[in-house]
Amino acid sequence: MSLSGMLNKFIISGCLGLAASSALAQQQPRNIILIIGDGMDDQQITIARNYLKGSQGRLLLDEMPMRASVQVQTVDDAAPQKSVYVADSANSASSIATGVVTSRGRIATSANTDQDLRTIVELAQAQGYKTGIVTTANVTDATPAAFIAHISSRGCENPQMMVDALVLGRIKIDCSADLKANGGHGSIAEQIADSNLDVVLGGGSKHFAMLTPASQKTVLQSALDNQFISVQTSQQLKQASNSQLNKKLLGLFSKSTLPVRLRAEGGRPPEKPEPSLLNFFHRYLGSVELPEAVACEANPEYLATPSLKIMTDVAIQRLSHNNNTGFFLMIESASIDKQSHQRQPCGSIGELQQLEESLASALAFADKHGNTLVIVTADHGQAAQIIPDESLFQPFDVPVFTPGHLVRLKTPEGAILAINYATNDFPMEEHTGVDVPLFSNALGRSLLPTHLSQVELFEHMAQFLGLAPE
Amino acid sequence: MSLSGMLNKFIISGCLGLAASSALAQQQPRNIILIIGDGMDDQQITIARNYLKGSQGRLLLDEMPMRASVQVQTVDDAAPQKSVYVADSANSASSIATGVVTSRGRIATSANTDQDLRTIVELAQAQGYKTGIVTTANVTDATPAAFIAHISSRGCENPQMMVDALVLGRIKIDCSADLKANGGHGSIAEQIADSNLDVVLGGGSKHFAMLTPASQKTVLQSALDNQFISVQTSQQLKQASNSQLNKKLLGLFSKSTLPVRLRAEGGRPPEKPEPSLLNFFHRYLGSVELPEAVACEANPEYLATPSLKIMTDVAIQRLSHNNNTGFFLMIESASIDKQSHQRQPCGSIGELQQLEESLASALAFADKHGNTLVIVTADHGQAAQIIPDESLFQPFDVPVFTPGHLVRLKTPEGAILAINYATNDFPMEEHTGVDVPLFSNALGRSLLPTHLSQVELFEHMAQFLGLAPE
Repeated sequence: MSLSGMLNKFIISGCLGLAASSALAQQQPRNIILIIGDGMDDQQITIARNYLKGSQGRLLLDEMPMRASVQVQTVDDAAPQKSVYVADSANSASSIATGVVTSRGRIATSANTDQDLRTIVELAQAQGYKTGIVTTANVTDATPAAFIAHISSRGCENPQMMVDALVLGRIKIDCSADLKANGGHGSIAEQIADSNLDVVLGGGSKHFAMLTPASQKTVLQSALDNQFISVQTSQQLKQASNSQLNKKLLGLFSKSTLPVRLRAEGGRPPEKPEPSLLNFFHRYLGSVELPEAVACEANPEYLATPSLKIMTDVAIQRLSHNNNTGFFLMIESASIDKQSHQRQPCGSIGELQQLEESLASALAFADKHGNTLVIVTADHGQAAQIIPDESLFQPFDVPVFTPGHLVRLKTPEGAILAINYATNDFPMEEHTGVDVPLFSNALGRSLLPTHLSQVELFEHMAQFLGLAPE
Repeated sequence: MSLSGMLNKFIISGCLGLAASSALAQQQPRNIILIIGDGMDDQQITIARNYLKGSQGRLLLDEMPMRASVQVQTVDDAAPQKSVYVADSANSASSIATGVVTSRGRIATSANTDQDLRTIVELAQAQGYKTGIVTTANVTDATPAAFIAHISSRGCENPQMMVDALVLGRIKIDCSADLKANGGHGSIAEQIADSNLDVVLGGGSKHFAMLTPASQKTVLQSALDNQFISVQTSQQLKQASNSQLNKKLLGLFSKSTLPVRLRAEGGRPPEKPEPSLLNFFHRYLGSVELPEAVACEANPEYLATPSLKIMTDVAIQRLSHNNNTGFFLMIESASIDKQSHQRQPCGSIGELQQLEESLASALAFADKHGNTLVIVTADHGQAAQIIPDESLFQPFDVPVFTPGHLVRLKTPEGAILAINYATNDFPMEEHTGVDVPLFSNALGRSLLPTHLSQVELFEHMAQFLGLAPE
């Protein structure tokens, strides 16, 4: 053989090898596991690290090979060209799920014009991917809903909440245009019952116990009619991990949000610093009593329901079973946000610990299934701030303290972690408008930029799964 | 030539090429440009983006090819094994500059034992690197000081502040052990005057106008005696960009901190929401008046002193001139923090804009000088939070408002950006303990992990410059 012949043969065989491995990669199922820590901004991550691992320690999140920051965008419903600088979970999850920026409270519908926006779950299903939703909130809550449903208000979780309803006994909502009778898709629970999701696990059974309009059936019954099998306990979920793997699974383990893992010792409520009488006359006079320091303790209610990790494991097993195309799975650690609204850092910390365990499961699966993109991100910022337990201005020797609520956590490493909640004095704190973090496994390093919007996150995920844009 | 001969020649010439380019890389000067945005956490970055570019816009920081988060660590001075969860600029800059975690207020000295900690500037100088410091603060302020000086308290900026001194008229400090007469290095200004820095640019001339102990010389005079040339105006600085390039340059352009670029319209002070009388009886009664929305305007004092970009350009030009070894340059955008302490978002935004311009200069230099590592990071978090201008709980129709100070910024894109300052009611806000962002140019992608401590940042920088560890 001539030199050029040998070289050609060498080059060709090399190229064939490349083509073969590329074809193999094409054939491999493509999976996305998207983990959303609701409200999990960098303050929440630092709080959890300080408590769970110590200030010199490392979370699993810290070991992720790719890190980016994500721009959260919101628009005004009445004037959609106008920016609003703080999101809620409904519109931010809608951005991630649909690639379109919308207004607060909306579930995968457009600001002002109220058009349905196709979600990545629907696009993936149309291409033969299996799809799943796992959450520690109601499965009808804003974040999971944005991946499945289309409705003008997040509050319309069940058929009884559709017309002239009151959320929290006071906020009026009306989704009458979304009634099935009016050509809509019905409440969020009904839309889940009608869906082709392969796995739905979380809380919110109360929304499935309601009767659907114009029938004597509950929403749960209509889910069963639509080929879902239903589980309600950890034991049943465990059994579901290796039975009827080709059936759609709806697991509702609690009437509402699943109980959190950690709480303040004795369920202690958040407090405000108490200045002495003299301090009311001038802020440099008198003294201040700070809330007593507390540790976190196990929440006894937590063990009644499955952990986020167990739900994750079952979801991955079912979605990957006998599946040559791949899957899209959204996992939400919901109570980082919910507990921060209530100024309960222990609750947020335990929930972030659950997210880490769920992430470990996702990474273990991805290690064995090369085409699995694991992404962890948050939907929006939250109120909690780590502030000095001893003020930077303590040497001035005057009372210096937050005007908000303060929780002084005794950390296992033997120090005091002071957490400030001061976005308002209402029983629930506000969200913040800060950029949120994004982490991914090594696969994401070549796919995702180090800064992106939630819209671009949708686009990168859709591209990875080869989904046709709208 | 035989086939094997040809292949060998091919392989050998390829390897020689590689070796040659590697040797070339070895010969190329190695430079680090470390830009510290003081207090520049993700809230500050998002605020600046929303104002300067709009919520859909991009900062230069957002285009950086590498993004990480950095753990900020602090220990208790009396019990250095004990974690403290919020840093000040002195101890956090000391971590970055020396690779050792210390206690608040300390400048490159160890917690409790008060030992000098060698800084990256000193290690670099010992290996023949040129070194420079540029800041919009006093050059004697905590962040720059930590790279140059060793002293127990950041307050000891000049010879008059060493013994039984009062900071801000109230905080007692005592650096008598650091007096030269007692075997110490003297005040921070004296240590700068005695240093071998090639470039020192910033504010703080008042500290150099003081007499040094046991002499009739000012600190400035002793700097001149130590071969510094001195400039005081933008005009003189411009001339310095191409004259006496081998001399050490000390530029002090203001008595204290350099004036910031932007301020609130008419210099408007921050305010608190004002609830109506009825609201004092119950928080759900009455109404609340929010502070009027303001735009930012140019601060007329700003033009009197050089911009951070001009100082950066002069510093880079002088440090890279006739330099085959390389340089270490620390650039601080100081007033992101200082203005946030004072609840002045416009000041922080203008300062972050200055950081971006300075970064553009650094990146332009790095593009032409391949071995230049450009890093942007912050030293610690700050108080500002973006909160909803219309509360998430507005539908409850009760007054909901922050207990802290609120600035409602009119953004150029025509919306209201509400910024909450509520870590305390003191005239100066606290820092926060959040992880801070880190960005680098492409060179950093292979050198830096996506999560690191400030100690590890020191280690990576020292390794890049080939500096011997202590």
